[in-house]
Amino acid sequence: MGEDLSGGDLSRLRQLNALAVIKALQGRPSLTLTEVAKRTGLSRASAEDVVRELLQKGWVAEAGATAGGVGRPARRYRFRADAGRVLGVDIGGHKIRAVVADLDGNVGERASVPVTPEMGRPERLEAVDAAVAACLEGAGLAAGDVWAAGVGTTGLVDGSGRVMLSEALPEWTGVDLAAHVRRLVPGPVLVENDSKLAARAECWRGVARYAKDMVFLLAGLRTGAGLVIDGKVHRGFANASGEVGALPALGWIRAQEHLKAASGEAGDVFAAARAGERAAVTAVRRYVRDLALGVSALVLALDPQMVVVGGGYSRSADVLIEPLKRELDRWCIRTPEVLMSALGDEAVVLGAVRIALDDVEDRLLDGRTPLVSHL
Amino acid sequence: MGEDLSGGDLSRLRQLNALAVIKALQGRPSLTLTEVAKRTGLSRASAEDVVRELLQKGWVAEAGATAGGVGRPARRYRFRADAGRVLGVDIGGHKIRAVVADLDGNVGERASVPVTPEMGRPERLEAVDAAVAACLEGAGLAAGDVWAAGVGTTGLVDGSGRVMLSEALPEWTGVDLAAHVRRLVPGPVLVENDSKLAARAECWRGVARYAKDMVFLLAGLRTGAGLVIDGKVHRGFANASGEVGALPALGWIRAQEHLKAASGEAGDVFAAARAGERAAVTAVRRYVRDLALGVSALVLALDPQMVVVGGGYSRSADVLIEPLKRELDRWCIRTPEVLMSALGDEAVVLGAVRIALDDVEDRLLDGRTPLVSHL
Repeated sequence: MGEDLSGGDLSRLRQLNALAVIKALQGRPSLTLTEVAKRTGLSRASAEDVVRELLQKGWVAEAGATAGGVGRPARRYRFRADAGRVLGVDIGGHKIRAVVADLDGNVGERASVPVTPEMGRPERLEAVDAAVAACLEGAGLAAGDVWAAGVGTTGLVDGSGRVMLSEALPEWTGVDLAAHVRRLVPGPVLVENDSKLAARAECWRGVARYAKDMVFLLAGLRTGAGLVIDGKVHRGFANASGEVGALPALGWIRAQEHLKAASGEAGDVFAAARAGERAAVTAVRRYVRDLALGVSALVLALDPQMVVVGGGYSRSADVLIEPLKRELDRWCIRTPEVLMSALGDEAVVLGAVRIALDDVEDRLLDGRTPLVSHL
Repeated sequence: MGEDLSGGDLSRLRQLNALAVIKALQGRPSLTLTEVAKRTGLSRASAEDVVRELLQKGWVAEAGATAGGVGRPARRYRFRADAGRVLGVDIGGHKIRAVVADLDGNVGERASVPVTPEMGRPERLEAVDAAVAACLEGAGLAAGDVWAAGVGTTGLVDGSGRVMLSEALPEWTGVDLAAHVRRLVPGPVLVENDSKLAARAECWRGVARYAKDMVFLLAGLRTGAGLVIDGKVHRGFANASGEVGALPALGWIRAQEHLKAASGEAGDVFAAARAGERAAVTAVRRYVRDLALGVSALVLALDPQMVVVGGGYSRSADVLIEPLKRELDRWCIRTPEVLMSALGDEAVVLGAVRIALDDVEDRLLDGRTPLVSHL
């Protein structure tokens, strides 16, 4: 070393110090300057400089001062999670959901618009527009207030946010979702497959918070999977991981048919099975047997710590989880924990919020979003 | 900072500087002190200190001096890859292999002892002893010269080096291989499943050197898989990953049967198929069809960049690879590259060498093996 820091280096150092202060404040009600200095390793004078600039920029606010003790109470500061907002969207077969969350990921506003699996592309995209508009209006926000948007959809999604392949929705293959949503909000738009987003959400706020390796099973009108390996959602070479459902031998293609055969609405079959109706009990047993083949293949391949069951059918966990465990015991060398999702219907949209926040944090980390003034 | 470094800090710093010098020298014929300083960022005086101590300790040797130019030619130094040795052992159904390699992973000596799949535990362990003894003798080494040993075996291996489960070899379940090999050589003994080691070797010196995600298929008298995810061998929660063969729907259990039915020795079937014999052609086609089910499940689950085919049958790649690709095309959303292993029969034992070297490097990195004198 021994050389002077360049302007770029100094600017980077200030950004890192500012980020350290924000990380220290996040998830805590408030800190004094002395506490900020202690938690960041900055000198008290540097901490004061950084906090002053973050106050000016709106990232930090003053909180109520500490009473008690002798002398003037110390000023306290808090992170302004409301300094920015992100948008999460979940494009499902039956519902479009949109939520707005603050920088701590707290969801402030929700909106949803009903759709049908049969609906064509223009109608579904209109429903997306309507859900986003309703959500922003409910939150009292303009489009420009949104820093980043995460979007979840059924189907395979490429790196540019286009749907490469959708079996479930007609006219959905080829839709450029990133481009569409970018017309609605100005910030970056991240698009991802719904099972992968639900897996991400389970690791963030769900039952898989402490899991390193996890298989997320989306059990609903469609069956899908999202894999978490070494704490990260595994995407694969072309973002096509988790697609064991494509292999007929693994049962997912025919799993649905058993439920359809037994009754009109899937919810009814589970209720009927719960009540002991014979045809429904048989249908659910066959469904679980087919479901378990694909799950067993994933478990045998990865040997995960746990399987998390989410999606619409996870509401019927009482008639699904135990039979699923018994089937896994038949095939697996080591049956992992099988847990029901704690996030229910919101897993995908929460995962969408999370990838939007990841993008915001990446841009702070590499300085693309300056926290403090550049030199 | 501004505080004095503690003795522990200084000792750690010297170790890191010494490691940096070794890393700079490794994989190059030789460097001058000026070049060492340039590549490590150390001052020339510090580089000289470190090199002097590494010379004393035997990690570095003088190489021929550079001629040409005016004045005295600069002294050159090289890493002594022969400063230490590691042992690699592959315990197969038909052969026990042992190799000795230097710290650059160059194999210097090989020995092998024939065994049979039917052989019981004591006889197989005796064959391990014989192979290791022959290899050390051939290399002119005493047991104490071995710094670490890597051992590959069929079956599931637990974290302590015990075989948890072996379908292929009788009396092999429960054998404490780490303890057994530790009686032969004094250093650390690392035991791992053979498919995982072959996968590791392919990423080190094989066709998967630049792959992030890879499925290794062990195709031989047994069928197995090793997964590389994000550049690392994926072990799973209880080291039981890659075991899709346990699921009957995925065909690996019955795949062998087609070959056995067509002829006595598998090698013959492939030769006969190559020659166009009808029964053999049918047998190989059925074998590949069943093999492809399990591989497709792994490919659909992980979406890897490539599949590498190794094991005994990879010698018959000419009648296997193209049919396997065609079968994968039937089931996979995206068929990855399918490549034949370039390491052949040595993949497992090279993987065993690699995990032994990993252990040596870990101990250098965290200071358990001091490179230079402690304070």
